[in-house]
Amino acid sequence: MTESAQSAPDSRNWKLTLAYDGTDFSGWQVQPGETTIQGELQAALGRVTGETPLPQGSGRTDAGVHALAQVASFELQAPIPPQNLQRALNRILPPAIRILEACLVDSTFHARHSATAKTYEYRVLLESPERGEICPPSLARYVYAYPWPLDLSALQAATSCFVGEHDFLSFAATDPDMAARTMSDHEADGVGTLATPSTIRAIYSSMWEPRKSEGGNMLVYRVRGSGFLHHMVRNIVGTMLDVGRGYRSADDIAAMLAARSRSAAGPTAPARGLFLHSVEYGR
Amino acid sequence: MTESAQSAPDSRNWKLTLAYDGTDFSGWQVQPGETTIQGELQAALGRVTGETPLPQGSGRTDAGVHALAQVASFELQAPIPPQNLQRALNRILPPAIRILEACLVDSTFHARHSATAKTYEYRVLLESPERGEICPPSLARYVYAYPWPLDLSALQAATSCFVGEHDFLSFAATDPDMAARTMSDHEADGVGTLATPSTIRAIYSSMWEPRKSEGGNMLVYRVRGSGFLHHMVRNIVGTMLDVGRGYRSADDIAAMLAARSRSAAGPTAPARGLFLHSVEYGR
Repeated sequence: MTESAQSAPDSRNWKLTLAYDGTDFSGWQVQPGETTIQGELQAALGRVTGETPLPQGSGRTDAGVHALAQVASFELQAPIPPQNLQRALNRILPPAIRILEACLVDSTFHARHSATAKTYEYRVLLESPERGEICPPSLARYVYAYPWPLDLSALQAATSCFVGEHDFLSFAATDPDMAARTMSDHEADGVGTLATPSTIRAIYSSMWEPRKSEGGNMLVYRVRGSGFLHHMVRNIVGTMLDVGRGYRSADDIAAMLAARSRSAAGPTAPARGLFLHSVEYGR
Repeated sequence: MTESAQSAPDSRNWKLTLAYDGTDFSGWQVQPGETTIQGELQAALGRVTGETPLPQGSGRTDAGVHALAQVASFELQAPIPPQNLQRALNRILPPAIRILEACLVDSTFHARHSATAKTYEYRVLLESPERGEICPPSLARYVYAYPWPLDLSALQAATSCFVGEHDFLSFAATDPDMAARTMSDHEADGVGTLATPSTIRAIYSSMWEPRKSEGGNMLVYRVRGSGFLHHMVRNIVGTMLDVGRGYRSADDIAAMLAARSRSAAGPTAPARGLFLHSVEYGR
């Protein structure tokens, strides 16, 4: 399908782009008794419009994972100017959730099914207590504060091993509930409805870059792909950090992928460093 | 007194420099049933050393106020290398509180009584929903997101009115408990033990500067002075923002000071934008 974000005035189908700090939420997806992004958004829509459609996200994010530009879609019967909806939602939602854009889209648009690519970012803050480099409190919720030396060239060598189409089963969450999700068309973070259950995903780009911030030196991993299995980015990052620290070699990554076993790969990096950076639609 | 931070190996008197995110704490000062910075620090000292001196801060910070470099002092009987104390405390304390430095100091050093100047910083994030400039969730805890246009030249005109020695009663908190604190030598944030109760303070410098950040355009107010009454910086900022927005004139500030009445000045700016930037000791 083609995107027609600005050209559907008669549509009742909405596309929201939103940012959030995931720290104090139990992830994206509505769960009984838990405060979730999806639940807060649904409740805010109810207060603004009297309607409570369940917003469909481009994918679920886990507890503690952030978004710079998550996308959600839903239908509303009531007519409302897009900027009014955006402002009204931002007045009601907590500051940890901000609607960056609201627009009416073609009725065929679906935040998850229509997505063609996603980009995630993982932020590692390099701590060095010896040199007085300590993670500032204002960054602690948004980075993995890493107190051991990292070899950037080893990280770069590792990162290219993931580019291309691979079976990422070794890098997917192993818990039964999550595995079931991975295998269904309601998967956490795959794109489109799959004809057959699959743990194959295509990674289009994968790179580390140094970034200076007010709070210190960061290494930021950015990965763009067709879709991602549950925990896939965090497991890739955790494995690469083991390579950067010298515990494993980049040469072993091909074998980890071939093993199709979670135990072949490295640990899961903490949620707090992970940001859903952007979601792409259209060809 | 002169500072002798690194030259007191036989001293039992410690000086800690610490940063914190005040959002989730009920301020600096220990209070029954509340989680406070002072209380967390005392508890962490107890776990590391078995001793629980009450750390004396350079001043109290209110709930939601942050610190880039608060200073605390206390005595410990047990000998412990400074870097070991720092690391052990950082392992125990939550990531929202970080010990930046620990050192032994002359026995006469007291974090509040020995302070000769303090600097506060107040961060305003300029929002413009029309231009899509919305406070990012990762900054929401650390700025006052201000959605109205501000006239920087009016702010600069206002800021100079506060420089010098003035009676700041109009800019001090009016609640009885706080007023009592202001009038005692246990005042929230004054320097030294005062011979007579006084609401006179000297401001050495006061300025606004624009700052670009990843999250948007900020205006940052920085004020350095001999000491500050309770709520003084937030009341000065709230008043200046009224000037920047056009509700009041910088020409009125002298009269506000002269009135010696809280009702003469403007509103109290929110705690979340305020940072204790640094504390100075020695001449």
